[in-house]
Amino acid sequence: MDAHQPAEPGVPIWYVGHHLPTPKNAINGHTLRTEVATGYDMITTHITNVNFRTRVEQSISSARAENKIHFHIESLDAAEVNLHPGDHISQVIAFTSSWIDLDSDDSLVAHVSRQVLIHELEYAAFCGASNVVIAGPKRRTNVAQYAQVISAALTTGAYMQLLIHLPMAEEEGSVANAGETYDEFAVWDVWNTIRTVCKYNSRVSLTLQIPAKLPSAHLVNRWFAEPVRVLFIPSFTFCPNAKGYPVFSKLHQALLTRYMKLRPTPYVLVSDTHLTPPPPAPAGSGSPQKLRYEPLGYLVYLRHLQKNQPPPTTVEKFGAGYQDYLQAPLQPLADNLESITYEVFEKDPVKYDQYEKAIKLALDARDTKDNIIVAVTGAGRGPLVSRALRAAKASGRSINLFAVEKNPNAYVHLLRHNRDTWNGQVVVIKSDMRSWNPPFKVDIIISELLGSFGDNELSPECLDGVQRVLNPNGGISIPASYSAHYTPIMAPKIYADISSRKNDPDAPETPYVVMLQAIEILAENEYIHRAWDFHHPLPENTMSDAAALGGGLIGLGDGGNDHNMRNSRATFKVPRRGVVHGLAGYFESVLFGDIELSTRPDTIDAKSKDMISWFPIFFPLKTPIHLPDNSEVEVTIWRETSERKVWYEWSVQAFIKGGGGQRCRLGIADLHSSKKNGCLM
Amino acid sequence: MDAHQPAEPGVPIWYVGHHLPTPKNAINGHTLRTEVATGYDMITTHITNVNFRTRVEQSISSARAENKIHFHIESLDAAEVNLHPGDHISQVIAFTSSWIDLDSDDSLVAHVSRQVLIHELEYAAFCGASNVVIAGPKRRTNVAQYAQVISAALTTGAYMQLLIHLPMAEEEGSVANAGETYDEFAVWDVWNTIRTVCKYNSRVSLTLQIPAKLPSAHLVNRWFAEPVRVLFIPSFTFCPNAKGYPVFSKLHQALLTRYMKLRPTPYVLVSDTHLTPPPPAPAGSGSPQKLRYEPLGYLVYLRHLQKNQPPPTTVEKFGAGYQDYLQAPLQPLADNLESITYEVFEKDPVKYDQYEKAIKLALDARDTKDNIIVAVTGAGRGPLVSRALRAAKASGRSINLFAVEKNPNAYVHLLRHNRDTWNGQVVVIKSDMRSWNPPFKVDIIISELLGSFGDNELSPECLDGVQRVLNPNGGISIPASYSAHYTPIMAPKIYADISSRKNDPDAPETPYVVMLQAIEILAENEYIHRAWDFHHPLPENTMSDAAALGGGLIGLGDGGNDHNMRNSRATFKVPRRGVVHGLAGYFESVLFGDIELSTRPDTIDAKSKDMISWFPIFFPLKTPIHLPDNSEVEVTIWRETSERKVWYEWSVQAFIKGGGGQRCRLGIADLHSSKKNGCLM
Repeated sequence: MDAHQPAEPGVPIWYVGHHLPTPKNAINGHTLRTEVATGYDMITTHITNVNFRTRVEQSISSARAENKIHFHIESLDAAEVNLHPGDHISQVIAFTSSWIDLDSDDSLVAHVSRQVLIHELEYAAFCGASNVVIAGPKRRTNVAQYAQVISAALTTGAYMQLLIHLPMAEEEGSVANAGETYDEFAVWDVWNTIRTVCKYNSRVSLTLQIPAKLPSAHLVNRWFAEPVRVLFIPSFTFCPNAKGYPVFSKLHQALLTRYMKLRPTPYVLVSDTHLTPPPPAPAGSGSPQKLRYEPLGYLVYLRHLQKNQPPPTTVEKFGAGYQDYLQAPLQPLADNLESITYEVFEKDPVKYDQYEKAIKLALDARDTKDNIIVAVTGAGRGPLVSRALRAAKASGRSINLFAVEKNPNAYVHLLRHNRDTWNGQVVVIKSDMRSWNPPFKVDIIISELLGSFGDNELSPECLDGVQRVLNPNGGISIPASYSAHYTPIMAPKIYADISSRKNDPDAPETPYVVMLQAIEILAENEYIHRAWDFHHPLPENTMSDAAALGGGLIGLGDGGNDHNMRNSRATFKVPRRGVVHGLAGYFESVLFGDIELSTRPDTIDAKSKDMISWFPIFFPLKTPIHLPDNSEVEVTIWRETSERKVWYEWSVQAFIKGGGGQRCRLGIADLHSSKKNGCLM
Repeated sequence: MDAHQPAEPGVPIWYVGHHLPTPKNAINGHTLRTEVATGYDMITTHITNVNFRTRVEQSISSARAENKIHFHIESLDAAEVNLHPGDHISQVIAFTSSWIDLDSDDSLVAHVSRQVLIHELEYAAFCGASNVVIAGPKRRTNVAQYAQVISAALTTGAYMQLLIHLPMAEEEGSVANAGETYDEFAVWDVWNTIRTVCKYNSRVSLTLQIPAKLPSAHLVNRWFAEPVRVLFIPSFTFCPNAKGYPVFSKLHQALLTRYMKLRPTPYVLVSDTHLTPPPPAPAGSGSPQKLRYEPLGYLVYLRHLQKNQPPPTTVEKFGAGYQDYLQAPLQPLADNLESITYEVFEKDPVKYDQYEKAIKLALDARDTKDNIIVAVTGAGRGPLVSRALRAAKASGRSINLFAVEKNPNAYVHLLRHNRDTWNGQVVVIKSDMRSWNPPFKVDIIISELLGSFGDNELSPECLDGVQRVLNPNGGISIPASYSAHYTPIMAPKIYADISSRKNDPDAPETPYVVMLQAIEILAENEYIHRAWDFHHPLPENTMSDAAALGGGLIGLGDGGNDHNMRNSRATFKVPRRGVVHGLAGYFESVLFGDIELSTRPDTIDAKSKDMISWFPIFFPLKTPIHLPDNSEVEVTIWRETSERKVWYEWSVQAFIKGGGGQRCRLGIADLHSSKKNGCLM
């Protein structure tokens, strides 16, 4: 789609379309050019016009007169369509007829509606439309019927997005079905049913209509986890500013800003621009004297908002393109990393500052007379070596610095670095830290082996392996400790991605590194559970027991790594219905003293704000578990080890409290295990 | 396993084993021969003895003294095992140590228990044991932890059955966990969690312990749906008869009879035969004077029961070997059936009698002066032709009889039959009934096109196709109508079978014909819903509309078969927790007048008792849905048609009533569709 976009650099790209009032005549390139000239990027059209509707309605009447329960609707006639193929199609969003009723209780109406929809979709696909909007179901009760039609419709037009048009919530007092009470999450429930019945097909997404009065923050938040491809904004969503021009409330502005940061970014459709706006609110402070609404006023305001978007944050800049993108975790021991991978990690503005502070604190704690032996184990391209030198200078301590690196390519880089930058102050050693055997003990071992879940890249095993060389009298490991954290999340987009990987049976049993965007933390108060901790150095007897079984060496003996097994069980209260698609995992680490790192969304700002080196980890579920309001999710997770591998297993169950207070089980997930894709030692 | 079995013909085969008191010495061929000499078929043994237990317990004590949380148990020593390889192994059921505690809250105990279990299983596998019993979890709360160990244990001994030993229900008043209330289904819940976590692995099954006091019929029934491989019967399950000998209560007898009819038939293990029985019940009517219990008395009684089993019923005889065996439905239009297939169907003792009665009734209703034209359409090998001739003779009517058959091989058979048996009374026509074009109209069309779901083998489409030749004035179709029926069921065994078909992505979207055995109808009062009906002949205007679109002919035009689309929605109340694995489908048919057929378990005896031609149909769910007590299951099912195919789609959702009376959704199944495997026209 060619965007009509402002030329100023740095202004984000927003695609704004004009939802045209249903025209009498077919749209064409001229229609589009007229709208683009006024500043829109695209237009909409209904696929068919009133001629088609008239024919269908007449057919229904005569069928009723003849007591028929089935009849066949002939396909479309030239006089019945508003859409034709042409270059303009890429900037057109097509709408199917909203007067049909796919979920009707009347089987004749449902039968006819289905035929109308299929005719329209097939014709739109023929014309080359890539986005087609379909009005959502008209009632809560027949959603399976509606979804079955959408599922059947997916066989038409293999590249066409079907955009189900739904409001954020039912309007209070206007519940479609008599006898139903108002339920804020009912529309979400409808959507959840449709996409579940349609197997999370990536071609079924949402046209979400923004109301003038926004629902609760919980519900607004929920929709951010869903695949919203179009934001549908009727003119009555705007309110007049002091001068009478249409603007957004602060809440609506924040909503739009948040949506426009999503990738892919939804399109914005403005509708009803030609309708007379509702009368202004009763006179009061700030209420405008006179409404200055005109058809183009809404677009002008949206372009104004677009220009005034805040600049992206560090994390946004760094994460651009990675949102909800699944990456397999690194295998740093089995593979040798490439330079670019190191470079990406070295860009972190926070992590290395924290390390430098921690190293200085550790040096400060030493007696000034000591000559301190420091080793960076797994030095990579040397960022921690540079920081160690700076910390030593700042603390005024004399150090002997060793850089130990197993990657022969990074080793070359370290040698050059030592010659050109570090003035030969460093001894560079080519060795796996687990087999390094210096003729002295090291006072401070510095490493950066943490993965997104803390221990998932074998930091415990590597640091066990190098503990032999640590001074048993007060030797320090930086990091001193780290912990793993998890919480169940709703993540429909990620689930859809994983479940589409049909040729990879291990896909749902792999933990992924992923910048979580379209997700929701389901637990009350977004509670995240601390699973387990690792501390370094280990107590002497743990090390000697492990060593007796071959622990602490490459190729551990049977049971030699048992002390690095962990397991954790936690129960999460879930106040609002939802679906659990997996677990989000984070870590925290104490580097030294009070210098910490965190990727937990609730502690990162306090501990290591703007740190970008780690995205969270995601443990998927093969089959989502549906949760009603006030349910509980029980998670058990294991860190398992064998002689050659480390892997995770996880199990999720859902419960509600029954009438008698007893727990009723609602769902059980298989045991998931990443053993096949475990991290190799 | 070689059975020690009575030589009398007709006596069913029961395998009865002796659960030996834990011996001091290893068992061997001699031990087995001694027990077989007394009448047992097999024996049991614990894999390890007290020496191993002593070693492990000492290790735990010293680990506690050293504050260790992990340590490694060395593998087994010769003096620690009771089992050795040998010819006798095929008649030995091995028991793992029951003093371990896999689900312990104490992580040291859990860690050690797991190692003990794995050592024992690996050794049992080495010895060639094919059935190993593992004591169930000790508490309700840590079942995921227990199940994770079982899941890991499945990697040992690829052919070994792991038989989880569980009682039918917790004993009232002895709930393992303080704070938990008595819950009759709690043990089933534990089992359901274990097998779900273990992905319904077919190697995880049950050793079910039979209590002296049986639980409710609902719970007893539930266990019949589960894979019970061993019935574990302690001596205290028996009660004394009037003479003081150990016998079963009537309820226990019925339970055993029912279990021993299952295929595969569970083994029976009698335990505690050497213990002194409890004192007899207080004196009263029928209470024995003196207990005459001795170790062999239990076996003698079981062999007595075995000899006195009722003979198998017609249905049992016919169904032997078909229990829970999944068959793809017939494709009678696309494929030509083989003679043996016809022969199997012709053996039905009831179906053809019903047809004969219906034909006679239809002929009786005609004027005696008429010469009646009768056609058997789809005559196969001719069973209905013979019945039509007999009915004509009985009613004293004169008929012209046509046998129409498209299968060229069956046609040859019909010609021979006409020459040798029917005295040339029949005109045999080689034609698809849908293209048969006689120069006259037929008064009675007789067909046997019904499938397990009634319309699933294209009876509606075939009879539409032949309606052209039916006399428009009072022409009769036998059957006159038929209806499809369904109800959600728990069917773990069938689910396990389908989900193991990893190479067939359509496996969970195929309706199967299956003799349902290990299942439970979940709905209150075993309610079965009538989905839809088909009546023949069709009204004239329906036929003409369809014909205008090419309906009623081979290769229907677009929409020409729309009048044979159907859909049905029903809500089922489920009083007791369970798991829905799919839908059981049945049919009923009115042949003519009051002559009916039924496969519904609740109406078959009234309408067509002992009819064996049809097993039920099963519509699977890809993912089971867990149901708590007092939930609801909503099913929508569609019969869909295109120009070339007929198929079904089905969707299942589960709900509970929330506190405010509103429905909360608990689970949604994908839309399932058999379109790819639809029935071809």
